[in-house]
This record gives sequence, C-alpha cells and structure tokens, in this order.
Amino acid sequence: MTSFLNRRQFTIEWGHCDPAGIVFNSRFFEFFDWGTWTLFEAALGVKPHELGAVYGIMGIPLVDAGARFIAPARFGDAVELTSRVSEFRRSSFDVAHQLFVHGALAVEGKETRVWATRDAADPSKIKSQPIPSDVLARFEV
Amino acid sequence: MTSFLNRRQFTIEWGHCDPAGIVFNSRFFEFFDWGTWTLFEAALGVKPHELGAVYGIMGIPLVDAGARFIAPARFGDAVELTSRVSEFRRSSFDVAHQLFVHGALAVEGKETRVWATRDAADPSKIKSQPIPSDVLARFEV
Amino acid sequence: MTSFLNRRQFTIEWGHCDPAGIVFNSRFFEFFDWGTWTLFEAALGVKPHELGAVYGIMGIPLVDAGARFIAPARFGDAVELTSRVSEFRRSSFDVAHQLFVHGALAVEGKETRVWATRDAADPSKIKSQPIPSDVLARFEV
Amino acid sequence: MTSFLNRRQFTIEWGHCDPAGIVFNSRFFEFFDWGTWTLFEAALGVKPHELGAVYGIMGIPLVDAGARFIAPARFGDAVELTSRVSEFRRSSFDVAHQLFVHGALAVEGKETRVWATRDAADPSKIKSQPIPSDVLARFEV
Repeated sequence: MTSFLNRRQFTIEWGHCDPAGIVFNSRFFEFFDWGTWTLFEAALGVKPHELGAVYGIMGIPLVDAGARFIAPARFGDAVELTSRVSEFRRSSFDVAHQLFVHGALAVEGKETRVWATRDAADPSKIKSQPIPSDVLARFEV
Repeated sequence: MTSFLNRRQFTIEWGHCDPAGIVFNSRFFEFFDWGTWTLFEAALGVKPHELGAVYGIMGIPLVDAGARFIAPARFGDAVELTSRVSEFRRSSFDVAHQLFVHGALAVEGKETRVWATRDAADPSKIKSQPIPSDVLARFEV
Repeated sequence: MTSFLNRRQFTIEWGHCDPAGIVFNSRFFEFFDWGTWTLFEAALGVKPHELGAVYGIMGIPLVDAGARFIAPARFGDAVELTSRVSEFRRSSFDVAHQLFVHGALAVEGKETRVWATRDAADPSKIKSQPIPSDVLARFEV
Repeated sequence: MTSFLNRRQFTIEWGHCDPAGIVFNSRFFEFFDWGTWTLFEAALGVKPHELGAVYGIMGIPLVDAGARFIAPARFGDAVELTSRVSEFRRSSFDVAHQLFVHGALAVEGKETRVWATRDAADPSKIKSQPIPSDVLARFEV
C-alpha cells in the first residue's frame, strides 16, 4: 500500500531569491506548507480553510521540519513539488516533500504534524487527537 | 503642534535582499508595519498585542499604502526607520515613514489606517470608529 | 489603443495571512511583482531571468509602489491578479494591478518602474534608458 | 573547550504570525539565518557582507536545516535567539539555535553550512574549502 502523492507546479519568483540569486532557504519551508495543504485538499476533498470545521480540529500544527538542500533553484525555474504522507502514527504524521528543478531533485523536506484540537480546559493549549480512520483511508492508493 | 516621532534602528538581513543584492520592495512594507506598531506602543504606552483590548477595537487595519524608493538598502546596512502620524482624521489616520541608510533618506512610505471595530451585526465586517481624544492627545508633543 | 493585460490565478496560502486571518499587506506587493514579471514575459515572449540579457538592461527596478486595500483576501481564496502597463513614458512606466477575490475587486496596486542599465562609470549606480520602440509595440493590442 | 555563543533579542512582529496567531514556521528559518550571520560577525569581527572578501569565499551556503517547535511564539513576544557552532568539520559546520520566549525554550534549530568558494572551472558551481584555523580559533572561548 502506498500513500497518495500530490504534485504541484510553480515558478520561482524574483522575490523568492536572495543575493546569491537562489531561493532563500526559508521560502522552501513556505513551499512545503503549500504542499501539505494541497495534498490534504487533494486526498480529502476538503478545502484547507474548512479542514478544521469538517474534522472538528483546530488544525494540523507543525512540530518538526527539516530540509536538505541538494541543488539551487533560481529565478524563473519551473519547479515541481511532490508531497505525500510518509508515515501516519496514532495522532501525528510525517509529510515528505521533494522539489524538482527541471526534473532533478533539488530539495528534500520533511514535516511532522499533529492532528490537534484545542484543549477544552485551556483553549490556548492544543491537544493531539487520534487521526480518524476515514482520513487514513483517503490517503491509501 | 507636531506629532510624536518614533525611531527604530535595525540591520538589513541577507533574507531581506533579492538577486539585485538590495532589499526586496515588499520588505519595506513589512518594515513600515513594524514602525507603526512601535510608534503606537511608544506613544500610547500599550503593547501592540493589547491595543485591541485596551481601546475596544479589532485593530488599525491598513486601507492604503505607498512607498517611494529613492536609494537602495543592502545586506548589512544599518538603517533607521522613523514613523509618525502625519494626519489624524475622525476615524482614520496617515502614518509617514522614512527609512535612512547611513543617514541618507532611502525610502519614504505612507500608510492610511482605520480605527476599527468589528460590526456587531456581522463580525466578518469591520466598521470605523472615531479615534478617542485621549489617543489623539498622546501623539501631541 | 489599449495595453496588453495579463491574468494570473492563484490561491491564497496559509503563510500569506496574518493573525487577522487575512493576507498581510506586504504580500500584495510581492504578488504585484509576480504580476509584472508575468506580464512582461507574456507581452515580450522573453523569460523574466533573460530580460536583462535580451534587452541589454540590468532590470526594471521599482521606484514607486502603492496599493489600496478594498476588501480582504483570506486563506483558501482563489484570486485573479490582472496586470497591465497603464502608461509608458520615455524611460519609465506604470503597471496597474487589480486583485479580484471571487470576482470582486479586493486590491488595486500601482508600480512605477524604470528601464535601467548600470552606469558605465559607476556600476553600483543605475541609469534610466529610453524604452525601445519594439518593446512598446509588443504591449499594444 | 566550548564554542562562542551569540545572543540576539528581538520582538515578534504582526507580520511574522499566521492566522493561528503564532509565528509561521518559515520565519524561524529566517531568524536562524539572522542568528548565524550575527554569530559570525561577533566571533570573527567581520561584517557579514564582507565575509566573502575577507576570507576569499563565496559564502557559507546552507545544505541542511531543521527545527523542532516546542512552544509557540506570538505577536509582541520578546524573544531571545542564541546561536553557536555545535560542530566544526573540515569544510562544513553545524550551527545550533535556540529561541526562548519569556525565558522558556520554544524552538530548537540546526543548520549545516559549508565553507565554500566558487569552482574556478565553472563559477555556477560551488566547492567546499577547508575552514581556516584562525577562523576555528575565533570560535573557541
């Protein structure tokens, strides 16, 4: 059984790049966030801003993120970002991202996120929740 | 009568700059936002995140912004941003920003903001409110 | 005679939005920059990162930018950005941007840019140049 | 022997935060970049934008970055970012970052960077170089 893979194409903009003429590192983490929302929308058929209401959660907050920068991406580059859940655990999951520049792997990323509700006793705190089985099922392909 | 002027010093960071090696334009509007919050904190003695609670408003949303780019700012430049309210009207006001690089004017900006509450009938809408006289008084120097 | 209009569709991302749940103002200036590059690519048939080499310029630096915020754009909103040159002068031009959220005008922007080369005597300085007539012709529709 | 530690204080801005009211993840990687430049300036006594010229390198490009998000940082929070080199290898090194909100650890980050020159044969490529011993010495405290 493999996990649903989402592909998203976009172009590297001038404002994404730094004085070295390549994408500034923090932008890739912004791209990964785009990728995760798009992946969840594609897998679940739910608009990102409705995810909370549909599943009774406050969101899928990030608890860990990492990236390996293999090759640069430059202004004007057409890139493809692929995103898939690499592991589901009881109440958290990992999303693996790969960004390709002209077909070659340029950046690998990983996010760990939590399926979370607000704590009823203290709404400023969040609490992880078991990921519903129908959500899990939607990611199986 | 002149209006309270706030000064804020900071350094241009690598990630603020674009492939031309100069600050990317959108960053200046981010700096102006920093300037306005700092100005209001200095003038009113209220922490930015407590402004809403203290004055019973939802915030001071931006309705107009503009900038004139006179000279570039570069990575490592020590800059000074000055911000002051150039005009108070009944329920809106203009903030004038000037960014100096090594003492020379590099960017001029202007923001128009509204003193706003949420509409009681439709909380997704905002409504302008008269700016309280004690707020006005705090900006007179 | 009217000027070439470019349309670009995209979705408002989580990371574009601020604690008020709406797009943070500086992001719109980033979007305008996207719009201008896309407009020039569409009108001239030249990739943005090749514009300098093709026309012998260092770029089209921004000297003035402004925006009027009419209605908010929120996470998940499908937006359309239209961009066209509203006026060409000898060596500078204005780009008018309009951002529509679900078909309604939400933000109007204007950029003034210069057709520029590096100063031969001092490459750290830029010099405006007459915009070539074949560039002007490409924008007429 | 321990490694030089740099401390940097700043305030979380409105534009750093997302609709959940907390700092958007990519911003932390921007903060880490600020931290590394400030650390190198403090340890070496060289302005960041002069680092390349002083040491004959093109820079200290990032090849790996990661963060663990332990607690949120919010608009108006006074934060302290500490940065130090946790390991020097022959031609690369790790920078460990810790961000404290009101004294409590909120985010831990790690960057791996390379001491790099441009490849003489192909300037679009970069090549790692042995880190000079006088650089290493400057980080020992």
